This record gives sequence, C-alpha cells and structure tokens, in this order.
Amino acid sequence: MKFKAEVDVMPLDALLDPQGKAVTSAMGNLGLSQISNVRIGKHMTLWVDADSKEAAAKMVDDACQKLLCNAIMEQYRFVVEEIA
Amino acid sequence: MKFKAEVDVMPLDALLDPQGKAVTSAMGNLGLSQISNVRIGKHMTLWVDADSKEAAAKMVDDACQKLLCNAIMEQYRFVVEEIA
Repeated sequence: MKFKAEVDVMPLDALLDPQGKAVTSAMGNLGLSQISNVRIGKHMTLWVDADSKEAAAKMVDDACQKLLCNAIMEQYRFVVEEIA
Repeated sequence: MKFKAEVDVMPLDALLDPQGKAVTSAMGNLGLSQISNVRIGKHMTLWVDADSKEAAAKMVDDACQKLLCNAIMEQYRFVVEEIA
C-alpha cells in the first residue's frame, strides 16, 4: 500500500528563531502589524510503501530521527494517510 | 480575538525540488528505500489579532501573497484557528 506523510519540523519553542523574528518585523512594514510571533520551520511531504499505516508511521518516525529533524534544535510531528 | 495560523509553503508540483531529491536518495542509504518522492518546503506558524476568523484569514492570505510565498515557484495553503 502507498501512504503519504506530511511532516512538520519546527524550531524548539524554547529557542530563538531569528528568521521568524525578521519576518515578524517585516509584517509591520507591510501594514500587517496584527501578525506576531512568526516561527519558521520545514514542511515535508513524502510517499511510503508499507504494509500497514503503523509500519508507514514507524518508517517516517525513523526518517525524522535519522535525517529530517535535528533533535537538539528542532521538534517534529507528522500525519500519515493512505493514498492507494 | 487571537488566532493562530499554520501556513505551508511548498514548491509547485511542476517544479523540480533538488533538496527533496537529495533527501530521497539519502533515504536509500539509511535503509529507508520505501520512502520516495520527498518534497521540502516551509512551515510557518503565526499569531493574528483580528475581530473574526474571516478577517484573520484575510490577513494571513495577504501576508502569504506579499511576503511568505513566491508565487512563481511556490504554492501555499493555511489553516486558522482561534486560540483566545
């Protein structure tokens, strides 16, 4: 079966996010000063061939820990859904 | 009222995503060759002060078009939810 996973990797809440800070202050210059606290991370989509949703989730979790997410600075979460 | 928006900005489907391609081939080296078609974009969270959910969504859409998304190469989508 084929599954699609959507992974979000974000900077840990406790860490400063300089890119997000820069964007937050740019919002003011664009007349969007009601927008605050921008934080920027990565969004990844990927396909997984697996026998079950659990097996697919296990593989995605593995991929996050080994490659996609740097646990020292980032946290991740993901959802898996069947596509075929 | 305060709203939280989650924005995903992804490379257009028609475009090559070299970063995603590199990660896809790295998956094979990690023993995760069942994972394919990785595409990598940005995930952003932000807070909006607005009178209604519609007004908040309008502002986020504005921010995406003016700053967060380069429409030539990227597409965006977002969800808004009330937090307080």
